[in-house]
Amino acid sequence: MTLPDFSAAIDPVKLDKLAEVAIRVGLQLQKGQDLVLTAPLVAVPLVRLITAHAYKAGASTVTTFYADEETTLARYRHGHDESFDRAPGWLYDGMAKAYENGAARLAIAGDNPMLLAEEDSAKVGRANKANSIAYKPALEHISNFDINWNICSYPNPSWAKLVFPDLPIEEAVRKLADAIFAASRVDRADPIAAWAEHNAELKKRSTWLNGERFAALHFTGPGTDLTVGLADGHEWHGGASTAKNGVTCNPNIPTEEVFTTPHALKVEGHVSSTKPLSHQGTLIDNIQVRFEGGRIVEAKASRGEAVLNKVLDTDEGARRLGEVALVPHSSPISASGVLFYNTLFDENASCHIALGQCYSKCFLDGASLSQDQIKAQGGNSSLIHIDWMIGSDKVDIDGISADGSKVPVMRKGEWA
Amino acid sequence: MTLPDFSAAIDPVKLDKLAEVAIRVGLQLQKGQDLVLTAPLVAVPLVRLITAHAYKAGASTVTTFYADEETTLARYRHGHDESFDRAPGWLYDGMAKAYENGAARLAIAGDNPMLLAEEDSAKVGRANKANSIAYKPALEHISNFDINWNICSYPNPSWAKLVFPDLPIEEAVRKLADAIFAASRVDRADPIAAWAEHNAELKKRSTWLNGERFAALHFTGPGTDLTVGLADGHEWHGGASTAKNGVTCNPNIPTEEVFTTPHALKVEGHVSSTKPLSHQGTLIDNIQVRFEGGRIVEAKASRGEAVLNKVLDTDEGARRLGEVALVPHSSPISASGVLFYNTLFDENASCHIALGQCYSKCFLDGASLSQDQIKAQGGNSSLIHIDWMIGSDKVDIDGISADGSKVPVMRKGEWA
Ligand SMILES: [Zn+2]
Ligand SMILES: [Zn+2]
Ligand SMILES: [Zn+2]
Ligand SMILES: [Zn+2]
Repeated sequence: MTLPDFSAAIDPVKLDKLAEVAIRVGLQLQKGQDLVLTAPLVAVPLVRLITAHAYKAGASTVTTFYADEETTLARYRHGHDESFDRAPGWLYDGMAKAYENGAARLAIAGDNPMLLAEEDSAKVGRANKANSIAYKPALEHISNFDINWNICSYPNPSWAKLVFPDLPIEEAVRKLADAIFAASRVDRADPIAAWAEHNAELKKRSTWLNGERFAALHFTGPGTDLTVGLADGHEWHGGASTAKNGVTCNPNIPTEEVFTTPHALKVEGHVSSTKPLSHQGTLIDNIQVRFEGGRIVEAKASRGEAVLNKVLDTDEGARRLGEVALVPHSSPISASGVLFYNTLFDENASCHIALGQCYSKCFLDGASLSQDQIKAQGGNSSLIHIDWMIGSDKVDIDGISADGSKVPVMRKGEWA
Repeated sequence: MTLPDFSAAIDPVKLDKLAEVAIRVGLQLQKGQDLVLTAPLVAVPLVRLITAHAYKAGASTVTTFYADEETTLARYRHGHDESFDRAPGWLYDGMAKAYENGAARLAIAGDNPMLLAEEDSAKVGRANKANSIAYKPALEHISNFDINWNICSYPNPSWAKLVFPDLPIEEAVRKLADAIFAASRVDRADPIAAWAEHNAELKKRSTWLNGERFAALHFTGPGTDLTVGLADGHEWHGGASTAKNGVTCNPNIPTEEVFTTPHALKVEGHVSSTKPLSHQGTLIDNIQVRFEGGRIVEAKASRGEAVLNKVLDTDEGARRLGEVALVPHSSPISASGVLFYNTLFDENASCHIALGQCYSKCFLDGASLSQDQIKAQGGNSSLIHIDWMIGSDKVDIDGISADGSKVPVMRKGEWA
């Protein structure tokens, strides 16, 4: 095999705990459910453990689709120009059908965030757009929370190398593995109980925010003076949540955020990113954007600006917000001091906003709202959903009520 | 990684030639075609080379679906009983859709033929049946030759161990790799030219048989006295062949056979297998069956008889023939003396018959015949198509013409 083998650097007991948490907490996989699993090729050891736990939990079928960095690159090396406007729609349509028939969905994250950094950004943009269009029907089942789903992660060596560039590769894999295990709470004596406790804490925060019913949040900090109007009838969520199929699951492992839907037309001011954003193989750093009437009218970045602008041009909704999320600066992931170059981790180390598609579950009675109703209440729609980090220990947040009164929400990055 | 790494035992130049032959001869992949690739997980090195050649040839997208022996076994170890009646229909339906939209299909063979030998044969049978039913729409595009398709193979260590049980594993992988390369003609100076020559030779044999228009073939040998009536308007094929999408491809690499469609109602007598048959993880050896009116009315095997009987009970067509094929005993694969426990190789070392589905292309003007017409002419239909070997250097074959006259076709396993 030409796959790098650093699995000896990964604690096998904790890896098995991660697999168990992914199935029992992340998915709450039900007896008789099919499972659609996607993973980087190097994540084979975790896939095998997850598959075993899935069958123990009564899975009907477990079907894994692997992505291989080498074959992704082969397309850029050898593919004809027309190839970059194509995507395997047949596969995504099949996945959409699986979800319609009740399958759960688990994604193992851990791809090399810099894989495509050296490739032609026009081709990267075209390939991403073709993929987004083809994937939309499947993604909608996820973003509408029709089914129980989860993302967890595996310490891919190419990712570990980026996070710990100065360490020998085995040591980097070991450190990234340990950081993933700690953030995923599988280093605790009883990870299942630890997750129950954590979910209760996040519930407390979202319950308070739902009681306040703020009309907007006002962010101030270095390079940031941003007012994010919240959607009419928005609802805050965090931690475990119940999908439309009735299954209560933890879609993200790890998760530290409480989040809701901004009003797509009511965002004003300017904001600066506080951590780099890794988007499908390209790093976008020091983003600075200005909003008018909810729309990004100016966008800069010190790195990856061309890809950022391609992203913003995906569709009209790509220039508007679909999510705003609060994470204290002292959260364990932030406290680790590690920059993961991976949204699943970095968004849980920092307050963030997301360009693009909103979550219908972040509305009161969201499950029964039509697409038109969601739009009328300020919910954004787009082919994309891209989180980027705007929190730090220098950011203050006020909640602004309908009558204009202000309530401190966060001070210097901590709950006020 | 927990994958065994014996790729150092595999000649990288010949492996790349195999990838090139698979794309340029096996598939004749067309510019703009999507490619659906399936492979055992250990075949990653060959998948990467094939993907590169596919993109060089102008592939739109190359999508690989891997099968992992470990996760297949995990289901038998941990799966609940109901799981064994389920299959990932969403994936197979997606594949069928890909073929309808013009995708080509390449399968890398090389799974451990004994993988499921120790598992509960009732569960193996149920899982196979569920899979066959779910896979039928996709398989029909292959068996109807709607698209260009190919099977080639990779020296999986678990397969190599079975073929060369007395050798150290690296040595077994090396020997199996070399046997695959020789049989696939990629050990020649110019493999593409070697395939053109081989295709011309097979064409000469099928042209002669089509000129003779035999009504039946009569096989005699140890434990065998079998008359195989041929379907009305049958046509012999061998080597390169043109799919309904207009692409001339070599569906099997290697291939040594010329083959046609028997009459599903006109097979009489008894026949003994001359090589073991490996069927989805179980070895079936010393098969002895008796036909009456085209139907198997008695079936025995010294090993795997329970699985054989499950196979025969799949549906009515599973007890009738869908293919008869002629291969000289002196063919290179047979001459190698290696028993591959893999149909792709062993069927090309020996005359064989297949239970189940017939190929519509093995009829004169087959592409324009309806399913009803094919049935009326004697074509069999079934969820399965399983080749098994009945040729040896002790078998004689006569062609029987409509007027009852006999023409020698093979004597002691060689063309007469
Ligand atoms: Zn978020
Ligand atoms: Zn988000
Ligand atoms: Zn055959
Ligand atoms: Zn066959």
